[in-house]
Amino acid sequence: MEKPLMVFQTDFTYKEGAVCSMYGVVKSVDRSLEIITGTHDIPQFDTWSASYRLYQSMKFWPEGTVFVSVVDPGVGTARKASVALTENGYYIVTPDNGSLTHVDREFGIKEIREIDEGINRLKGKDTEEVSIFHGRDLFSYCAARFAAGIISFEEVGPAYPSEDIVRFPILEPTVEDGKISGIFEINDPNFGNIWTNIPLSVFREAGFDFGDYLQLRICHKGEETFSRKLLFHKSFGFEEKGEPMIYNNELMKISLAVSQGSFMEQYGIGYGSDWTVEFSC
Amino acid sequence: MEKPLMVFQTDFTYKEGAVCSMYGVVKSVDRSLEIITGTHDIPQFDTWSASYRLYQSMKFWPEGTVFVSVVDPGVGTARKASVALTENGYYIVTPDNGSLTHVDREFGIKEIREIDEGINRLKGKDTEEVSIFHGRDLFSYCAARFAAGIISFEEVGPAYPSEDIVRFPILEPTVEDGKISGIFEINDPNFGNIWTNIPLSVFREAGFDFGDYLQLRICHKGEETFSRKLLFHKSFGFEEKGEPMIYNNELMKISLAVSQGSFMEQYGIGYGSDWTVEFSC
Amino acid sequence: MEKPLMVFQTDFTYKEGAVCSMYGVVKSVDRSLEIITGTHDIPQFDTWSASYRLYQSMKFWPEGTVFVSVVDPGVGTARKASVALTENGYYIVTPDNGSLTHVDREFGIKEIREIDEGINRLKGKDTEEVSIFHGRDLFSYCAARFAAGIISFEEVGPAYPSEDIVRFPILEPTVEDGKISGIFEINDPNFGNIWTNIPLSVFREAGFDFGDYLQLRICHKGEETFSRKLLFHKSFGFEEKGEPMIYNNELMKISLAVSQGSFMEQYGIGYGSDWTVEFSC
Repeated sequence: MEKPLMVFQTDFTYKEGAVCSMYGVVKSVDRSLEIITGTHDIPQFDTWSASYRLYQSMKFWPEGTVFVSVVDPGVGTARKASVALTENGYYIVTPDNGSLTHVDREFGIKEIREIDEGINRLKGKDTEEVSIFHGRDLFSYCAARFAAGIISFEEVGPAYPSEDIVRFPILEPTVEDGKISGIFEINDPNFGNIWTNIPLSVFREAGFDFGDYLQLRICHKGEETFSRKLLFHKSFGFEEKGEPMIYNNELMKISLAVSQGSFMEQYGIGYGSDWTVEFSC
Repeated sequence: MEKPLMVFQTDFTYKEGAVCSMYGVVKSVDRSLEIITGTHDIPQFDTWSASYRLYQSMKFWPEGTVFVSVVDPGVGTARKASVALTENGYYIVTPDNGSLTHVDREFGIKEIREIDEGINRLKGKDTEEVSIFHGRDLFSYCAARFAAGIISFEEVGPAYPSEDIVRFPILEPTVEDGKISGIFEINDPNFGNIWTNIPLSVFREAGFDFGDYLQLRICHKGEETFSRKLLFHKSFGFEEKGEPMIYNNELMKISLAVSQGSFMEQYGIGYGSDWTVEFSC
Repeated sequence: MEKPLMVFQTDFTYKEGAVCSMYGVVKSVDRSLEIITGTHDIPQFDTWSASYRLYQSMKFWPEGTVFVSVVDPGVGTARKASVALTENGYYIVTPDNGSLTHVDREFGIKEIREIDEGINRLKGKDTEEVSIFHGRDLFSYCAARFAAGIISFEEVGPAYPSEDIVRFPILEPTVEDGKISGIFEINDPNFGNIWTNIPLSVFREAGFDFGDYLQLRICHKGEETFSRKLLFHKSFGFEEKGEPMIYNNELMKISLAVSQGSFMEQYGIGYGSDWTVEFSC
């Protein structure tokens, strides 16, 4: 049977040798494993982003793919090191620190196991007393052993109730009096776009569609920071360069952009539950 | 028959999950396809750089390699999504927005086809109403199907005349009265070097050679910003650290550097047709 | 026999097409070679970092792995282009410019050969007169031919005495009157941690252990810049966010961090032999 692909995401960057060490551990377990770099540019310690990025790309991969996600501010402390199996058939090797939040909500976690450090931790190479690099010594090593078929999912370690998984609170959008309210859930930090938690389907049910001119109101901690009518476009190129617009993002969530510019920078907008957004006709 | 390699370049960076989603689509089409990251750090929306970088590295790859280039400010609008076959036997999957300019000039485009979205666009996974991520839903999906042998080049979609390809104007260097004039065509943004459009061969024909001490004059919009005699060195290490110099770059074009420094920063120099350069004895 | 893996590290970044050209050369030599990106984010011209990063990750890779390290400020000058074989069975293709310092000290160099440019330099493709990109034309090409089995180690070129290898001076820590003194040898530039040259074993011999509250004194060029008692923790999560701490790093060296912050930025600390550090009870 073909071995599953391994997709990695961390907040390590490539500024030093951490990623290279991790990948070496994988190849030392089984030379034939295929490693794909998802990203090593997750913002530091940002387990919320780790959770969102897993959800963002997971379903585009072949079933059975093993994701290794290491954004781990609590490394070496009591937080669990785990392997989760999702309802749609993917594996995630990760600290259980909130990184499973979005995947759990969107796809469901079928089963989760805590990694048994006695069996599935790297031995030798002067690593036993290292407590700060589970990405190398525990997550990559255990994930590689599992992907290689050396251990079964059961041999990862003991299962624990999926109710115990650490989850961040997630806010759902609301519709009232023709107004759709939500929050900015995350951004696209490269292009400066900002993504709400409002699905296109909610827009549609409220009768909003592409080409509509909608009133947008953004508040930070309850205080209005942006209020303006904007066009809801199919894509960026339909708006003048430098102009703000509403669009449907790649995950079918209502989002904001400046055509060939940065909405976040141009209007000083951030994300998180402090940032509320309201659309009306 | 061996499947061609797939080389990717975009302006997406790794700051969020876009690259990971694209690569997942490829592996879901055909697990055995080999993905190589060319770069995801093309400057945003910079189709000129996309064009130059394709030309810069293409000829070093095995014939038949499939390049996927997604710098696509016009995504979702009327610009064509295409697959080009070059005269020297490479395939390029790209928006037809100027990204083919340098490859067309240097190697020639033998045939170009517009991607048929009815056949070669990703279906399912809640992507049909997404208009802003052709990198995932159209370019990567179609490229993977072609590289996997699922579709032939003809099945990409209808051919169109190569005269219709969008091209940027390219300025050629001139020689007059012992002076060689050109422009700064692009930079090496990492090391701060700046590359002219003047081939080494033009220098040679004018009698300039390594070891010569040449008068260099740089103008921005016609106004002189730099004028100085510099040595034409074989490589950086022959000049003192921090000193400017002339050299022959990796594409056999006359270029400027500061030894272990940045010419662009040290002298405030940029590139584009506004920046003219003149060499004389 | 299985072909060795190829692991690359350079200071090229992905800002332009240099990495893509290098990888193309490898794949043109032998399509089946497996390329792994170690890092392309080594600080520019920083051969000390190149040396340290090789040492940091090497032992986690399968024996026989071929490392290609190109941080090469002296490209095209008289510095040797070499392939080294370490005592523990790895190959390193690199300019002999100090990049072998740490690997030599930690594992030993068994044999070193200078690359014969007559045989092992890329020909054609308009590269013969290019003197500034040995990463593409010499190191990658020669490494690929060796990894592919086209040439033997002997056919790389003539051996030379390992005494002639260019080495940086390395300072060793000292213990006196219950004080352990060393230097900051390098950093973790992503997380802002700083790594001394003092092994955990030296701490242990001096009777220092996890949980101890130790006096730390940092001097820059002999002048005190930091003096404070800090806890020696097993991992970051045991300290309050924003607080400084001592820890044992992934290479078993005593290091400093700020929990979920940057020690280097918070206290304005750098590394190198100018930066001395002293621990006492």
